[in-house]
Amino acid sequence: MLSYLAQSCQISLRGTRVELFDIASARQPPFFRASPMNFTSDNAAGVAPAILDAVVRANSGFAIAYGNDEWTRAVERRLCEIFEREVAVFLVPTGTAANALAIAHLSPPWGAVLCHADAHIATDEAGAPEFFGGGLKLVGLPGEGGKLAPSTVEAALGRGRGAPHAALPAVLSLTQATEAGTVYRIEEVRALAALAHAHGLAVHMDGARFANALVSLRCTPAEATWKAGVDVLSFGATKAGALAAEAVIFFDAARANGMASRRKRGGHLVSKHRFLAAQFDAYLKDDLWLDLARRANAAAADLARRLTALGLRPFWPVEANEVFVALPPAVDDRLKAAGAQYYPWPREALPASAAVPPDHRPVRLVTSFATTAEDVERFVALACAG
Amino acid sequence: MLSYLAQSCQISLRGTRVELFDIASARQPPFFRASPMNFTSDNAAGVAPAILDAVVRANSGFAIAYGNDEWTRAVERRLCEIFEREVAVFLVPTGTAANALAIAHLSPPWGAVLCHADAHIATDEAGAPEFFGGGLKLVGLPGEGGKLAPSTVEAALGRGRGAPHAALPAVLSLTQATEAGTVYRIEEVRALAALAHAHGLAVHMDGARFANALVSLRCTPAEATWKAGVDVLSFGATKAGALAAEAVIFFDAARANGMASRRKRGGHLVSKHRFLAAQFDAYLKDDLWLDLARRANAAAADLARRLTALGLRPFWPVEANEVFVALPPAVDDRLKAAGAQYYPWPREALPASAAVPPDHRPVRLVTSFATTAEDVERFVALACAG
Amino acid sequence: MLSYLAQSCQISLRGTRVELFDIASARQPPFFRASPMNFTSDNAAGVAPAILDAVVRANSGFAIAYGNDEWTRAVERRLCEIFEREVAVFLVPTGTAANALAIAHLSPPWGAVLCHADAHIATDEAGAPEFFGGGLKLVGLPGEGGKLAPSTVEAALGRGRGAPHAALPAVLSLTQATEAGTVYRIEEVRALAALAHAHGLAVHMDGARFANALVSLRCTPAEATWKAGVDVLSFGATKAGALAAEAVIFFDAARANGMASRRKRGGHLVSKHRFLAAQFDAYLKDDLWLDLARRANAAAADLARRLTALGLRPFWPVEANEVFVALPPAVDDRLKAAGAQYYPWPREALPASAAVPPDHRPVRLVTSFATTAEDVERFVALACAG
Amino acid sequence: MLSYLAQSCQISLRGTRVELFDIASARQPPFFRASPMNFTSDNAAGVAPAILDAVVRANSGFAIAYGNDEWTRAVERRLCEIFEREVAVFLVPTGTAANALAIAHLSPPWGAVLCHADAHIATDEAGAPEFFGGGLKLVGLPGEGGKLAPSTVEAALGRGRGAPHAALPAVLSLTQATEAGTVYRIEEVRALAALAHAHGLAVHMDGARFANALVSLRCTPAEATWKAGVDVLSFGATKAGALAAEAVIFFDAARANGMASRRKRGGHLVSKHRFLAAQFDAYLKDDLWLDLARRANAAAADLARRLTALGLRPFWPVEANEVFVALPPAVDDRLKAAGAQYYPWPREALPASAAVPPDHRPVRLVTSFATTAEDVERFVALACAG
Repeated sequence: MLSYLAQSCQISLRGTRVELFDIASARQPPFFRASPMNFTSDNAAGVAPAILDAVVRANSGFAIAYGNDEWTRAVERRLCEIFEREVAVFLVPTGTAANALAIAHLSPPWGAVLCHADAHIATDEAGAPEFFGGGLKLVGLPGEGGKLAPSTVEAALGRGRGAPHAALPAVLSLTQATEAGTVYRIEEVRALAALAHAHGLAVHMDGARFANALVSLRCTPAEATWKAGVDVLSFGATKAGALAAEAVIFFDAARANGMASRRKRGGHLVSKHRFLAAQFDAYLKDDLWLDLARRANAAAADLARRLTALGLRPFWPVEANEVFVALPPAVDDRLKAAGAQYYPWPREALPASAAVPPDHRPVRLVTSFATTAEDVERFVALACAG
Repeated sequence: MLSYLAQSCQISLRGTRVELFDIASARQPPFFRASPMNFTSDNAAGVAPAILDAVVRANSGFAIAYGNDEWTRAVERRLCEIFEREVAVFLVPTGTAANALAIAHLSPPWGAVLCHADAHIATDEAGAPEFFGGGLKLVGLPGEGGKLAPSTVEAALGRGRGAPHAALPAVLSLTQATEAGTVYRIEEVRALAALAHAHGLAVHMDGARFANALVSLRCTPAEATWKAGVDVLSFGATKAGALAAEAVIFFDAARANGMASRRKRGGHLVSKHRFLAAQFDAYLKDDLWLDLARRANAAAADLARRLTALGLRPFWPVEANEVFVALPPAVDDRLKAAGAQYYPWPREALPASAAVPPDHRPVRLVTSFATTAEDVERFVALACAG
Repeated sequence: MLSYLAQSCQISLRGTRVELFDIASARQPPFFRASPMNFTSDNAAGVAPAILDAVVRANSGFAIAYGNDEWTRAVERRLCEIFEREVAVFLVPTGTAANALAIAHLSPPWGAVLCHADAHIATDEAGAPEFFGGGLKLVGLPGEGGKLAPSTVEAALGRGRGAPHAALPAVLSLTQATEAGTVYRIEEVRALAALAHAHGLAVHMDGARFANALVSLRCTPAEATWKAGVDVLSFGATKAGALAAEAVIFFDAARANGMASRRKRGGHLVSKHRFLAAQFDAYLKDDLWLDLARRANAAAADLARRLTALGLRPFWPVEANEVFVALPPAVDDRLKAAGAQYYPWPREALPASAAVPPDHRPVRLVTSFATTAEDVERFVALACAG
Repeated sequence: MLSYLAQSCQISLRGTRVELFDIASARQPPFFRASPMNFTSDNAAGVAPAILDAVVRANSGFAIAYGNDEWTRAVERRLCEIFEREVAVFLVPTGTAANALAIAHLSPPWGAVLCHADAHIATDEAGAPEFFGGGLKLVGLPGEGGKLAPSTVEAALGRGRGAPHAALPAVLSLTQATEAGTVYRIEEVRALAALAHAHGLAVHMDGARFANALVSLRCTPAEATWKAGVDVLSFGATKAGALAAEAVIFFDAARANGMASRRKRGGHLVSKHRFLAAQFDAYLKDDLWLDLARRANAAAADLARRLTALGLRPFWPVEANEVFVALPPAVDDRLKAAGAQYYPWPREALPASAAVPPDHRPVRLVTSFATTAEDVERFVALACAG
């Protein structure tokens, strides 16, 4: 058994979670014994048992709706502790909601939001930030390995006619971990945030995979965010193991003025809010969120290491839970035939320096808390066979 | 034990649901033994055990995200059966999302949406329909008992300068059951829908409490909706016992063109979609939804009957799960002191004909699947004591 | 010749305007000699000769575009003088643009704008405020003679669940002169504005007919606006005699932050801006605006006095340039046959106290700077004949 | 005197325009005798005398407002003739309005609009298309000389995850003449439009300088637009010599359904609409529009030819009324000192192949109908002196 699986066992042995885990196991196709080799997305994994158990336990009698319940208060307090300051917290059911609400709150409708050209907000949210932001403009910028360089941001800020003719640069949005599976170093975040602030922009961090980044960085949540200049964080839990729970966190609570109305009219104020809060409560309790992320990252690192040993070197450093490689056709076919699942990755998104043979097939492999050592082993064995 | 409680027992004895119920009971403040007298809202109730159990059971291995899973396919098929035709289904996490997305899809941004002045979309959604609809206009109309009369709608249609100066009437939205706890008769829906269609308007039904209406009407889902002229239904499950699950149902599937993008950019495409579908699946299975609604309606009817016997006559016919009465101050104080919970109701929303003594306090009492006979009994006993 | 015509002659004899007037007269159906009896709207009148002459004179060589020209600077300075304080000015081509931009700037998207139910913004702008305001909500309130009473506003402020469920009252919009041809007294504006400010609302004034109100009130522009509590004024010139020119005026210039971008992205930053400014320059020069308004008001007053003498009493006090009366069918037919033009007025918009015979036809008669004494005389003579 | 000036004289001798021209000349700094050397923008020129004269002549008595007047009807008929088919016409006061309204009408809010990265809609309209389009997304693509290549468009269409995750490509917007002063050949438009249509996209043409393109192409308006596949044209008149007048032209009138409401709620339905129509009427009469454009293009061609002779070769072919060159510092300084006006052009917008010495200053020189031969001669003489 590899380390990331060992961690998962450790988790499953803690307190009441064990009980539910056993109960659940008895009724379910076991998570950790079969090897579905599902690397499509961390969204394909189910819910971490401890989180689901918390949802079940929250179903206790009546509770006032719309976030005025004890579970929500507790999560808010917990997040203040974790981030070492007063924060304003808004729980929502999806990551797209978190990002779009946060960005819309930081930018006027005539604002421009600078982000990586491959950022989820730019490519995968069907224009949600533009919609919530009243028609704001996303400006996708290039950057190696999913990261923006300060020089690129600076050049973008210097371009154009300025307001009122051009959209007014208002927000810098950084994805952490990035869509390329890399992680901004703290000093990189700090430099970008300083640049943004110097030009009057707010700094948003899309942390759909924040936990994966954090355990990679080995720093505190505060260091990874507001201490480095982040103003608002989309703090994801869903991809990491929750059912459907994300938080928008304002590090300057005053800046959140009006956000409660914005969330409500977006249809993102969940009525039976305790169940949203209960997910976060369990996610944050006893560092479960970090354990889950470590497990996912360890699986990715293991996968990357072994694939590299086979000559299949990832395009970018594997710093979180995603591995991008080009598979020879025979390998791809064999893996698919064996039931492995993963998505192709567009060739034009690869680094210019990557020398990918024309017939090789670039793919993305995403690990999650539910990825097992056996998943990785089988995958590698199949890749190796060719 | 009263009938609606008996029904609830019957439910809890079905199949695997029993098991979870017992497990849950062992860990939780028991739903059906204490008497919290919580009449604030059906949102304050938790999740019906069978539905929560289905969520737990759905946590089985990996599943493709964003609604391309088997649970979702099954729910779509089930809804086609229930409504006796091909329907297009979009699951979302909140009722505000369902309403706002549906209305935005039926109206151009320059459209006017005719609705009751007290409709949830007009008073409680913070402008969500206007936001999703690109600035459309809600036109709140008066109507006794929460219902619109055809003459009122007709007058509204005849008013104004017409397009392009005035907003163009585009949608008629009916709330079923209404905010006054009444239920439109089928022939009332039919007459209103015919009028709307004759003027080129689409007909939306806000069915946050659709099940409550349906069991009150004793008709089929098809009769209550498209057969009576409804084009799109916001089909609620949350208030009725789900965790967070609503469906937008287009009875003419072609009309749903583009709705998938609209939902996604609204942030309402839940990634781990199977858990949304699993809720609906359990809700619809073995007529659970109707059983839950009957239970809530029965509690309201019982409450209304007993309060009437005490001289506290509801303002409007109690046809679903809401009772509106004016409490003498002493009664109100005594109930509150005993822990009963409910919200005041604004005096100006009462019928003109209601002769409420100046010191009496109008209140709204909402029952749910979780309301027990003991809740009602204690409440009535306390009301009676004065 | 009546006084308002005398004034118009006086105007036409001033300076260079005479020259153009003569040139124009030679080529055009003369404004002041024929009697078209056009009472449809002040929009149907052409452009006051002095204003058109100013446009022609502005066509002199090159000028930097987008409002950075001398004409615009001059108008801005002039408006500061007229309003006796630093104001921020934004010229736009239409009244709907002025209102929608102003309101959108004063309200968050989740705001509610309280206004009279018959306000132009509510009935005649096709949802422009909602569109520009990102889906804000107009709350139309009743009020005798087109005016809101403080008690009505206060009641509206006390209604509803409050944010985040209900839209947040954010703006009070007053129309001055009103759509009923009445004029708020200064003390009425002051009381309403004080109430609004006490509840945190901003005060907008739709002054499409501001000049008509001002000459009726016999007070200074400052007294009619910011001294009475108005925060932002839509200052109309088009209806009063300009070609297409309105100004949004912020009495607290700091509040206008971002408005330049808002105007631009609304498509309302006119490129050859000097021609917009030139209209305002002429409009404001030598009190032309007040002269034009006095002329229009005098015509309305004269018309009202004479119709009253015939037993056709206006429904509301004629305080600006609009007269609302019910015409006997024979009178209406005879006037129409003689070529008089005016619009019917909806019966439901009349005061409850008005006892209009069922066959009589309520109409609106609008005068303008271009209405002649002969227009009025012929109209009255025709009305009288019956 | 050069040819383009001769043309301008010819125009000024036609019919009544002569009269006004003389009158105007007597009062104004003469357009065609001084040499302001203003090459900042065609927006800096005033109004062509014949167009201003038409505005003056339209000021004749009363006219029904909001576009229901005879002037508007006449312009609509004229545009049908010019484009050789039934078209739906919407006059608006600004080019930004025309583009934003047109694009919003062709794309759903979740649509993507493919355009050149330097297109005016992408860089200079402060997000107007995004605002009017409810948050749609502009996708700026690279292209030499301001033009898009089919291969670039095709690649963009193949990118991304598709709906509902990515914005749905819905419109291809071509700028004609381009921002680089070049002109798409008919066959280029045809190829791009065919590609767009094959993928279900509509084709919009931003014709702020449509006349300049047309006289360059020497084809008919129909050939340049719908016969080549253009669905909707923003037909500019302002830059070409009008005061403030643009037209949105739908070549399939059915597609314009709802556009009247969209224009109104955008605040772009001008009340005294005859003055908007009168501008277009004069613009189109006796081919004035083509004459004005020929004059501007001839000035640019002359300027380019002479600068090239001096070794200052334009970066792109001069096919309309814009010339882009890099000036040696001494030349730039001397021109500025002599009063010449023009804007710098960003170095990063130049073609990669352009070898511009580091100290040279790229500039944009825009000619207009008001540019004189003397303007060009003085400019060239000053450039030469160094």
